[in-house]
Amino acid sequence: MAGVWLLLSLFAFGSAEAGKLLVIPSDGSHWLGMKPIVEELGRRGNQVVVVVPEASLSMGPSEYTTTLTYPVNYTKAELEANLADQLNTILSIDISTDLAKFQSFIISLDILQTFILRNAEGLLFNKDLMKKLQDYNFDAILTDPFEPIGAIAGEYLSIPAIYMQINLPCGVDTLASQCPVPASYAPQPFTHFTDHMNLWQRSVNLVRALLKPMACRRLFTLADEIASRVLQRKTSIVEIMSRAALWFMRFDFAFEFPRPLMPNMVMIGGMATKKPKSLSQELEEFVNGSGEHGFVVFTLGSLVPQLPEAKAREIFEAFRQIPQRVLWRYTGPVPENAPKNVKLMKWLPQNDILGHPKVKAFITHGGSHGIYEGICNGVPMVMLPLFGDQGDNVQRLVSRGVAETLSIYDLTSEKLLVALRKVINDKSYKEKMTELSAIHRDRPIEPLDLAVFWTEFVMRHKGAAHLRPAAHELNWIQYHSLDVIGFLILILVTVIFVTVKSCMFCFRKCFKKTQKKKKE
Amino acid sequence: MAGVWLLLSLFAFGSAEAGKLLVIPSDGSHWLGMKPIVEELGRRGNQVVVVVPEASLSMGPSEYTTTLTYPVNYTKAELEANLADQLNTILSIDISTDLAKFQSFIISLDILQTFILRNAEGLLFNKDLMKKLQDYNFDAILTDPFEPIGAIAGEYLSIPAIYMQINLPCGVDTLASQCPVPASYAPQPFTHFTDHMNLWQRSVNLVRALLKPMACRRLFTLADEIASRVLQRKTSIVEIMSRAALWFMRFDFAFEFPRPLMPNMVMIGGMATKKPKSLSQELEEFVNGSGEHGFVVFTLGSLVPQLPEAKAREIFEAFRQIPQRVLWRYTGPVPENAPKNVKLMKWLPQNDILGHPKVKAFITHGGSHGIYEGICNGVPMVMLPLFGDQGDNVQRLVSRGVAETLSIYDLTSEKLLVALRKVINDKSYKEKMTELSAIHRDRPIEPLDLAVFWTEFVMRHKGAAHLRPAAHELNWIQYHSLDVIGFLILILVTVIFVTVKSCMFCFRKCFKKTQKKKKE
Repeated sequence: MAGVWLLLSLFAFGSAEAGKLLVIPSDGSHWLGMKPIVEELGRRGNQVVVVVPEASLSMGPSEYTTTLTYPVNYTKAELEANLADQLNTILSIDISTDLAKFQSFIISLDILQTFILRNAEGLLFNKDLMKKLQDYNFDAILTDPFEPIGAIAGEYLSIPAIYMQINLPCGVDTLASQCPVPASYAPQPFTHFTDHMNLWQRSVNLVRALLKPMACRRLFTLADEIASRVLQRKTSIVEIMSRAALWFMRFDFAFEFPRPLMPNMVMIGGMATKKPKSLSQELEEFVNGSGEHGFVVFTLGSLVPQLPEAKAREIFEAFRQIPQRVLWRYTGPVPENAPKNVKLMKWLPQNDILGHPKVKAFITHGGSHGIYEGICNGVPMVMLPLFGDQGDNVQRLVSRGVAETLSIYDLTSEKLLVALRKVINDKSYKEKMTELSAIHRDRPIEPLDLAVFWTEFVMRHKGAAHLRPAAHELNWIQYHSLDVIGFLILILVTVIFVTVKSCMFCFRKCFKKTQKKKKE
Repeated sequence: MAGVWLLLSLFAFGSAEAGKLLVIPSDGSHWLGMKPIVEELGRRGNQVVVVVPEASLSMGPSEYTTTLTYPVNYTKAELEANLADQLNTILSIDISTDLAKFQSFIISLDILQTFILRNAEGLLFNKDLMKKLQDYNFDAILTDPFEPIGAIAGEYLSIPAIYMQINLPCGVDTLASQCPVPASYAPQPFTHFTDHMNLWQRSVNLVRALLKPMACRRLFTLADEIASRVLQRKTSIVEIMSRAALWFMRFDFAFEFPRPLMPNMVMIGGMATKKPKSLSQELEEFVNGSGEHGFVVFTLGSLVPQLPEAKAREIFEAFRQIPQRVLWRYTGPVPENAPKNVKLMKWLPQNDILGHPKVKAFITHGGSHGIYEGICNGVPMVMLPLFGDQGDNVQRLVSRGVAETLSIYDLTSEKLLVALRKVINDKSYKEKMTELSAIHRDRPIEPLDLAVFWTEFVMRHKGAAHLRPAAHELNWIQYHSLDVIGFLILILVTVIFVTVKSCMFCFRKCFKKTQKKKKE
């Protein structure tokens, strides 16, 4: 009887037939953010092929997947040395003014331009590898737009693409998806503004919004060329990404300022955060050591295990003056009289530590993983943004009253001390953070399940065409209704002209008659 | 160890403590669309109080809830007679031109203005009832903005409000929620446009978008007055609704054209559609009677059981000429020589019939329930839009190639026949509808569960402040960055002025010197 229903049910829900997914990730924390989806998709029976360079900071085999590697012209040691160099440069730049921020924005575009393409040769011009990928006959690609080689590969293979949003300075995610970002209350990337801006900030923000297409052209100058060569037609990264089936947005509104989203954006913020586990006996003893005062956690992310000596000294001095104990992920030189309440470690089980009931504050650079672990466990933060989107991230928490921010550039022990004491002793930080945590964790479906569902959806339906707005078929003038406004003004002017002329004509007729009568 | 986590878990997920919800629904199909959420919320242990007028078309007690009634100055019979009158007027209006559509839009605003307030006296100025509601101490209100008395009551009681979006002609949902509706590709309500518009249509659409605030003022003239009286301060319905915690959007993107959404919009389209059940033996025998030709279902919604005799005759004539059998919900006069392949019924188990494997086409007015039952069961449609949002709904399916539309105003048997044969014999309609059905039903969570989750969320967290964009704190000029544009133009003009003046000054100096030299 209800045969059609049954048939449709099988078609709709029955992913009995597993999909074939190509994954081209990006390095560092990017890969750590993508790995859980990739492994879960493999675990659920999909054939997942991850393509990574032979040398990388963090990328490597994952469970339930096939890993293909390709040769590159650098080693892991070179990558690490290069990174340390760049970090030292960054730590010596003051970006407290709007002009300095704009300069750093332009510099980011130029630095990233070559950086994001370092694997192009090894992957896109590797004929054997590309042939192999073609033979797989994938149903979709999941890739990180930070390195647009994934986008180009997906376009070359003509398969639906899912992008894991990452805050590139030019805002390619909102540009390519035609997502409205009202300049009056939605801050542009790398401005460090909140959703409450004064006239000057809104002006800067509008200019940044208008510069987005140009910024993307600058960032992707080389990438656009490579894409055109690979695809053998004139194209651009923005154009390729505008065909995205889906965008996985790495935020939720417990963190991000509320703003419009497009139908093909799926929020998966906090996806990688797991339930905290118990600490080792050694750690447990240490964090309990200061009794009711609790303890503080300090990490600057996987890329920054060290700090210049002078900065480190300031930090040690601050820690000496607090009653809390401190767990610090730090591998740099230790001063002779280092305070006894500080335990230095090469690696921290960060999420497990943040889940401990005695943790009082989290000193962090404001990377996306750490932020969500902090929110999830309800820990107030002191934030030291270093680079990339961290300056923006920080504003989102500071404006919610759950964190304080300091500039690493002019950090002193006094400043750190003031911020730490505020966050620990002023109860409002903890209260607001507990509220934020409750909101973040109260959701109808886990973000990992959502990511897996939508990836499988794209594989099942060969894309997500029903989520693609007609905006993509309009040019800039049409999209902003400028031709319509011109047309309406033309009508208005014509109507006014004809009315005035008619009135003048009637007036003249009447006037002539009156004059004639007078003469008579 | 992970004590904080456990504590947070309880806070976040443990709706051990049930909420208290006030429900003020609207009549007709509106109530049928809200009832499933209300009953499910009650079933899950929440205290749900539904407030309805003593006389109504469809509203009455629901399971697992408390129903409170209030007296009104009309009877059910009067309501029905009034409705029949209005329908006859509507059926005699031709709205095939843009001008006629605009006139009908203005007429709708005026007709609705008093209609939506017919219960204001009985509810809002009923002191005993309002006192009783106050004493309940509700956590939230779920209401239908079609009748703004619910919104006013919620504001009076100072409780977070959830609105069930309904396509009011003035587009109050997008206006009050500050949701961008790009005029270039997102059609305004009551325009009957698709997301692909020509220059003229885009012009009409832009004008309609700009008129939205004015249209809402006209629609809510009386309601704004009543709201101001009840709340004892100058206010408006748009202002009250701008404080919505959530909007339940009664669509998904298998139906609606892809367009931006706000964070506090939850899509619950197709929520009320259930799994079809087997037909009665009598019906089963009838629908099987024409063998491979299958059968056609025809209803015009719960409000329209009849048709003017001339129209009915045209329809009977068309049905006489098709090999399919027809199930028609019709209570009007039957011509003597009515064709044998038509079975007239006072009531149809519509969803069960649409789920039958032999159904070939669905003739419908394009109401939201019928549309989702049709999509869910994958049945191509012939659509006869009558009033309200039906003209818009129809365009959404026609543009997807899964339906044909006809005007009830100039319906003839030939036209109906052509449309029916096209939809039944051209396989593309069925194929596209099967695809659409698969997409609609392939979702990570059932819309009913989503609606229940988010209602409970609002009750748990006393609203959803984290989803409220800062746009609400800006005025129209600020929101559209007009002050910023003025400011930037001022800077530009000043820079140009100073530059030109400086150049002229230098030029004059040099020129004078040259002249002096020459003279010398």
